[in-house]
Amino acid sequence: MTKRIALITSGGDAPGMNAAIRAVTLQAEKFQYQVLGFVGGYNGLIENNFIELNRHRVDDIVRKGGTILKSARCKAMLSDVGPNSVVETLKVNKIDALIVIGGDGSFKGCQAISKLWQGNIIGIPGTIDNDINGTDQTIGFWTAVETALDSIDKIRDTANAFERIFIVEVMGRNCGFLAVESAIASGAEHIVCKEVIEDEVQFIDNLLVNINTAIKNHRTDSYIIVMAENSLNFSADALSKKIERYTGVDSKAAILGYIQRGGSPVASDRVLATQLGVAAVDAVRNNKSDIMVGMLNNRATETALCATSYNNTYNQEIIRRLNQLNFNLD
Amino acid sequence: MTKRIALITSGGDAPGMNAAIRAVTLQAEKFQYQVLGFVGGYNGLIENNFIELNRHRVDDIVRKGGTILKSARCKAMLSDVGPNSVVETLKVNKIDALIVIGGDGSFKGCQAISKLWQGNIIGIPGTIDNDINGTDQTIGFWTAVETALDSIDKIRDTANAFERIFIVEVMGRNCGFLAVESAIASGAEHIVCKEVIEDEVQFIDNLLVNINTAIKNHRTDSYIIVMAENSLNFSADALSKKIERYTGVDSKAAILGYIQRGGSPVASDRVLATQLGVAAVDAVRNNKSDIMVGMLNNRATETALCATSYNNTYNQEIIRRLNQLNFNLD
Amino acid sequence: MTKRIALITSGGDAPGMNAAIRAVTLQAEKFQYQVLGFVGGYNGLIENNFIELNRHRVDDIVRKGGTILKSARCKAMLSDVGPNSVVETLKVNKIDALIVIGGDGSFKGCQAISKLWQGNIIGIPGTIDNDINGTDQTIGFWTAVETALDSIDKIRDTANAFERIFIVEVMGRNCGFLAVESAIASGAEHIVCKEVIEDEVQFIDNLLVNINTAIKNHRTDSYIIVMAENSLNFSADALSKKIERYTGVDSKAAILGYIQRGGSPVASDRVLATQLGVAAVDAVRNNKSDIMVGMLNNRATETALCATSYNNTYNQEIIRRLNQLNFNLD
Amino acid sequence: MTKRIALITSGGDAPGMNAAIRAVTLQAEKFQYQVLGFVGGYNGLIENNFIELNRHRVDDIVRKGGTILKSARCKAMLSDVGPNSVVETLKVNKIDALIVIGGDGSFKGCQAISKLWQGNIIGIPGTIDNDINGTDQTIGFWTAVETALDSIDKIRDTANAFERIFIVEVMGRNCGFLAVESAIASGAEHIVCKEVIEDEVQFIDNLLVNINTAIKNHRTDSYIIVMAENSLNFSADALSKKIERYTGVDSKAAILGYIQRGGSPVASDRVLATQLGVAAVDAVRNNKSDIMVGMLNNRATETALCATSYNNTYNQEIIRRLNQLNFNLD
Repeated sequence: MTKRIALITSGGDAPGMNAAIRAVTLQAEKFQYQVLGFVGGYNGLIENNFIELNRHRVDDIVRKGGTILKSARCKAMLSDVGPNSVVETLKVNKIDALIVIGGDGSFKGCQAISKLWQGNIIGIPGTIDNDINGTDQTIGFWTAVETALDSIDKIRDTANAFERIFIVEVMGRNCGFLAVESAIASGAEHIVCKEVIEDEVQFIDNLLVNINTAIKNHRTDSYIIVMAENSLNFSADALSKKIERYTGVDSKAAILGYIQRGGSPVASDRVLATQLGVAAVDAVRNNKSDIMVGMLNNRATETALCATSYNNTYNQEIIRRLNQLNFNLD
Repeated sequence: MTKRIALITSGGDAPGMNAAIRAVTLQAEKFQYQVLGFVGGYNGLIENNFIELNRHRVDDIVRKGGTILKSARCKAMLSDVGPNSVVETLKVNKIDALIVIGGDGSFKGCQAISKLWQGNIIGIPGTIDNDINGTDQTIGFWTAVETALDSIDKIRDTANAFERIFIVEVMGRNCGFLAVESAIASGAEHIVCKEVIEDEVQFIDNLLVNINTAIKNHRTDSYIIVMAENSLNFSADALSKKIERYTGVDSKAAILGYIQRGGSPVASDRVLATQLGVAAVDAVRNNKSDIMVGMLNNRATETALCATSYNNTYNQEIIRRLNQLNFNLD
Repeated sequence: MTKRIALITSGGDAPGMNAAIRAVTLQAEKFQYQVLGFVGGYNGLIENNFIELNRHRVDDIVRKGGTILKSARCKAMLSDVGPNSVVETLKVNKIDALIVIGGDGSFKGCQAISKLWQGNIIGIPGTIDNDINGTDQTIGFWTAVETALDSIDKIRDTANAFERIFIVEVMGRNCGFLAVESAIASGAEHIVCKEVIEDEVQFIDNLLVNINTAIKNHRTDSYIIVMAENSLNFSADALSKKIERYTGVDSKAAILGYIQRGGSPVASDRVLATQLGVAAVDAVRNNKSDIMVGMLNNRATETALCATSYNNTYNQEIIRRLNQLNFNLD
Repeated sequence: MTKRIALITSGGDAPGMNAAIRAVTLQAEKFQYQVLGFVGGYNGLIENNFIELNRHRVDDIVRKGGTILKSARCKAMLSDVGPNSVVETLKVNKIDALIVIGGDGSFKGCQAISKLWQGNIIGIPGTIDNDINGTDQTIGFWTAVETALDSIDKIRDTANAFERIFIVEVMGRNCGFLAVESAIASGAEHIVCKEVIEDEVQFIDNLLVNINTAIKNHRTDSYIIVMAENSLNFSADALSKKIERYTGVDSKAAILGYIQRGGSPVASDRVLATQLGVAAVDAVRNNKSDIMVGMLNNRATETALCATSYNNTYNQEIIRRLNQLNFNLD
């Protein structure tokens, strides 16, 4: 029996979302399922604004950054108004299953809808932050690391030429994965993220001493600190000034910002997105609901949508472990 | 107590080998171990040709392709002559441990040395082929996939413009991982590798029919086949001609070749190389021997060097499973 | 008064063709001209197969490789049949001007049409070979150089690791620009292209002596030869074997092939394509015909289509001059 | 007769400086000239801190970003103290010629030295800003454009997904070339740089109206403004807020910053650097002094160092002309 699937991308865009859209579409087509792509995240569902997805519509999008289904913030989803309108749209279009590609915030919307609607609701983790439980990586994470890395490599050229200190701020609101992996990959001298800070004052003191020792002992030509946004009570710029005052060495801050969201996805993000797109349709076929599909230890797995929030001991432990690979100079 | 480590890179060079050299050096320095880097693989050990590695020597090499320790074929290692000379060098330099970054062939050399020498012998898997048991990925694999992917993306532009068929041959001697991952990531229409071929004649027949159906039904503008080297009894060029004859559509072969070996390593290869470099030194500290360090399910693991050969059911199964994500057009 | 423009891309695709399509479309829109994009080069004109181009149709294509108007060989244009059909289509659609983005072969088609039709015919030079008179660069050239360069840089990693000789064959049928610029940019040790060969036997003899001297004197770790396709009476592979026999050093050939055609255009190709797209529409406005627009010494210029063939003393002189920047080792 | 050349890189580092260092070294070696590379710009000359440059020292640096000779600010050069010390060093080392790779500020240092020293002083234009008279491009400019372009392409993905307005601030202190070329290449909707602003208030008013019209008429999914640093009396962030207030559309600022300085140079920068490095040594051979070598209309030219300051009608005119290729939406 055929089924009708509603598909949205929601929350911050992440490279590989289009590859997931393509995989959902092609796997659905294999079983003669229909896919309606609603435009602009939950807004598309509220306003009944969709395009029909088929093989030709997703042609060659596997390599495209952003999302052809667009995304947007949607305040209506924070109250009952949004979910009610969404359910109406789902019913009007005789939808059997809703697949949401997004992050934890987007999955909260799923849970609200789930209380009002009997169809299958499946989440696919898509965010550059990698701050979701139930998957080793989120779609877009490794591309964002690669973009950050590419920038840090470039900054290293200038830092070396001027024997200078740089603080590079990467994204990651409440999660240090992006900072940690790009710091290790770039050979950065130090990492700043919440997961490795116990006492901020103590942490900064240690950092300052570490820098001074490194410089005094000529252990490095330049000193790069990779810092997750919001990990301190002051800005990258303020940290830079503090360091310059303490060490007497020229110190600069570079905020990478929005460039980390876009770009053609790296290979592993495209493969992950394809695996999860297929897994989501298979979950629909198997009549699963209120779950997120993910990859844990190289296997497709399902996690209850209510259990996908980051901020547990498990992830923090991985970050602490990774942090030990960052060879600081003390 | 301090130890002296001999380090070589052996076999085909792979992006990330330098990151592994750096990690071995920095982790060794942390425990006041000394590292001698022998130049040109086993030849350096035979000829007692080395450089001392320290923090400054490995500065900024984390991002460099190739290997600063160079590599080479070494016929002497195929007889007793090589291993005996190696052992002599190890003794002359009072070496406690030998770390070899390379592939399965290089590890065979380790086993020969092991029979003649009591020190710790540790392998680190470095090859773009990902054809080693005991690690989910080898160092260099994802960079090679990214390079192949970048090329296939470019070929797609021309294939689309001319509505043409392309066969893209990627490396991978006896292993289809590189072909399969780059095919999925690029959205290729078909994969050719040993692991998914049971009967070659039958396989080619199916392929030809599949192409013809795809063209007749206008299911795709262009048709790209990613093929692992040596996977057929005839060349990519011969396959191309066969297809052109059968379909009447312009068909071209592109052999990617050596560009897949070089280049700055992608983030995940640098992180993997750093993890394994550290794990190798830790194995030395723990007095382990005749093992390869690897990452399985995100954890550092050890596998006996004699059990690292590819070609078992396990890897072939993964490739078959991945192959199902390649949405062919029948 | 409004005008109707027919636009095609013809010959081998080149990165930046889409940027030119966009510029023609936007500049035309500025003057309320209409643009019909015929699909598949001259075939589209013969078969009256077109799409209407407007701002939305060309949205975000400035960065896309290939050509949204596709291209194809067209045998019919070699006889009278093709041009006659083309003219019929031009008349049926009340076309005032024909703009052709392509190479010298495509411009020959223009000249055939010109004899049968009174409208404005404007050429835009688009080919990776840079083998056209009347413009310092053709659209796509610098992107192709960048792609070749990126590959040669990667091959250098392996060549250095193995202290090996590599022959890298780049495109450029009858023109050495691509070989020369990518050789200089990559720091290759030698260039092989028709423009710098007077006597092939003598040239190869010198090359062999040069390599041997370089190796004997340890002047370089590796030796890379960049070779334009068709520049010798034997293949890159044959040259490689010849060198290996003469020097005793491992020597490999790498044929870059089709990857050089595709890819997102580099900045200078996008700017050039935009300038020439605008210049072409301006030429239509000024009622010019049978000319190609180009950039010479940073200024938009017009050259008679019959005078655009490569192979004159002028270009060969530039290549000889550039070749002197390649610091060979004698 | 052999000569001794002192070489420095000065001012902000620019991609391609290493390619110029290599070319100076190899061309000098051809004539048995010696090259001393002083470290850290003028500071190296003041402190008599140098390395000898030869073929092996510059091996494989053609592709490296930054500068192996490092750079630094040098306050001493602003008074007489610096130039006097420099001259002393030049005399102590029996230097015949000084070659300075840098920008206009660095050339001011040359002029001060020239008053005190009889040797040949040659400038090579190296800065990402392209703000020097006497050369169509400076070394590093096109690489910086490419880096900016790559970032703007990525931001476009997010801008399209969210139908958002972005202001992207690029470098270029007092010169709009970088902004203009990257805006045209990226298909940005608007450019902000001093050269195209006559009256700031009027300019901003027009911009706001233009954006509103574009949005109301659905002429574009997203709206990107490329802005040169320091081109307005307020920041990119302030402009963003102003636009958001006026249009009601989500608007964000992205400051690209230091990533624009580093990275492996693009092909055209490597070729330019090689040409100018050779031209500089040739100028020494021809006993020229107080001149900068540059490329104008594809030919190597010489310009008096005192005439290299930007800010004349000529360059501003080019920028105004280029700006017309930016298809704004009114």
